Amino acid sequence: MTAPQGPPATGRGGPVRVVAFGGGHGLAASLRALRRCAPDLRLDITAVVTVGDDGGSSGRLRAERGGLPPGDLRQALVALAADEPATRRSAGLFQHRFLGDSRTGLAGHAVGNLVISGLIELLGDPVAALEHAGSMLGAVGRVLPMSCQPVDIEARVRGADPARPGEVRTVRGQHQVAVTSGRVEALRLTPQAPVACAEAVTAIGAADWLIFGPGSWYTSVLPHLLVPGLAEAIVASPARRLVTLNLAAEKETLGLSVADHLAALRWYLPALVVDQVLADAKAVGDPEPVARAAESLGARLVLAPVAVADGTPRHDPDALGAALVPVLGADR
Amino acid sequence: MTAPQGPPATGRGGPVRVVAFGGGHGLAASLRALRRCAPDLRLDITAVVTVGDDGGSSGRLRAERGGLPPGDLRQALVALAADEPATRRSAGLFQHRFLGDSRTGLAGHAVGNLVISGLIELLGDPVAALEHAGSMLGAVGRVLPMSCQPVDIEARVRGADPARPGEVRTVRGQHQVAVTSGRVEALRLTPQAPVACAEAVTAIGAADWLIFGPGSWYTSVLPHLLVPGLAEAIVASPARRLVTLNLAAEKETLGLSVADHLAALRWYLPALVVDQVLADAKAVGDPEPVARAAESLGARLVLAPVAVADGTPRHDPDALGAALVPVLGADR
Repeated sequence: MTAPQGPPATGRGGPVRVVAFGGGHGLAASLRALRRCAPDLRLDITAVVTVGDDGGSSGRLRAERGGLPPGDLRQALVALAADEPATRRSAGLFQHRFLGDSRTGLAGHAVGNLVISGLIELLGDPVAALEHAGSMLGAVGRVLPMSCQPVDIEARVRGADPARPGEVRTVRGQHQVAVTSGRVEALRLTPQAPVACAEAVTAIGAADWLIFGPGSWYTSVLPHLLVPGLAEAIVASPARRLVTLNLAAEKETLGLSVADHLAALRWYLPALVVDQVLADAKAVGDPEPVARAAESLGARLVLAPVAVADGTPRHDPDALGAALVPVLGADR
Repeated sequence: MTAPQGPPATGRGGPVRVVAFGGGHGLAASLRALRRCAPDLRLDITAVVTVGDDGGSSGRLRAERGGLPPGDLRQALVALAADEPATRRSAGLFQHRFLGDSRTGLAGHAVGNLVISGLIELLGDPVAALEHAGSMLGAVGRVLPMSCQPVDIEARVRGADPARPGEVRTVRGQHQVAVTSGRVEALRLTPQAPVACAEAVTAIGAADWLIFGPGSWYTSVLPHLLVPGLAEAIVASPARRLVTLNLAAEKETLGLSVADHLAALRWYLPALVVDQVLADAKAVGDPEPVARAAESLGARLVLAPVAVADGTPRHDPDALGAALVPVLGADR
């Protein structure tokens, strides 16, 4: 027998290069789980983050100052902050929201949002700004925006007005889409073809694994597939692909089955091939339709207990990390 | 001959413990000069900073949120920031003011002011907040507020209204005092006896040198002497005392001679004894009255070229540092 030919599939000898896509709490859960893979697995982590937020502190900053909405970027940075007393305290500062009921002034703004916005304004480059913000937190990975331009999310929603359940109307803005009471039938970005962050494209091309989800499917997971430069890079990448499914439907995905989530990925990026779909057995219920939906993407369904023990639909970082180790560490 | 008796006067073997009092640009100049004393002299630097600012970004934050005005604290922290690429960039971020003409929203706020205010709110303790802010900048010394309560500065000013040059009226607020066109005749704080920062009192008691000035005399240098706990600690401290004089009169001290500056120190703290008065020969002009005023405080006048070369009345950190080395390093 001769030794296997070609370069090692997952950068054996070096770290496993992982690119995680998402935004908000779902991406943060994914990143916290990835950190837990050490010391079993040495990972080089890049987060590629949605830039469509228009609610809360981010929405106010975006309306007032016009730059990238910082909130999802901040959540990703904090999830990667080093576990040392000083960086834990800085992470706490980033997450701290100025007290007060007022919707004016500083009240409600997360300090980290102001730091990130200030850095972007000072350096004139979101990628350099996020690199420095990461260094302030001793981040154990890199955070990139999916695009250096902010985007708006729009959805065609059936029954957005509960009084007219059959009517389809356009709902504009990530926040409105996330809280709509109707059923999302189509999604698009404005501008329709934002320029992909070049560093994200490079990271995708050099990755061993691309990870989609968990997270708000329409507003955090699918938007990346609507950025042409990212979609092309994802399809062209030699990396394997993992989809981590949510533990429960959210408002925006009410009525969407677990299998429907996978179908939506395929709808928005028909060329997408997936290697593994990771889900919690309890959340999935009958695994048959999910396994079939995974198969239609080319993927194997992996079931593992990844939820927190208290029954709330949140991923447990340790459990998700433990489930990720054999997946990400497996030979191709 | 026998060896000199008693403990070494300036903590020989350990660092020379220096406490510098002031606020704003004057204190920052003093701190930058103190850093330049290394490697000739190993210093342990503590800055004790006024908390009376009510103008600009600090004034807006104070009016909106009620905590300590952060601007002078920020200037001191930045002056002590480590000279490394990452900490220089963080110091640049602290100093960056959000762009825009608006007096509402974020425009005009220094990012560091927001960071310090957020830390104070998060930790509930200005001393702990400043310690953490210092760690974010790799500060080579410690920054303390003179009091953990904000204060207001009030002055009795003759001729505040140029149309009535003989009239004395009360001018309220540090900013108004600093820009008054009249002559300050008396100064006080509100509340009249703010509680001194306990850590500042401790630092003064353990110091080898106490340094007053340069800086805005009424609004940055004298306020410390009006805090009873600091005044007592200054008088009781075994430390030697240095006064660094300004290079030019400012608006608030127009008409005040160099000798008058020293007399004002004595007026507000009659028990103050000073060891050295450091001044620039060119700024002093005829040294005789200044030397006499220094003598009346118990001090020797030291003349050295400490101004920048371009003729503007700013201290050159290297030159001031070079002048400080023999003063602070001298045996008692």
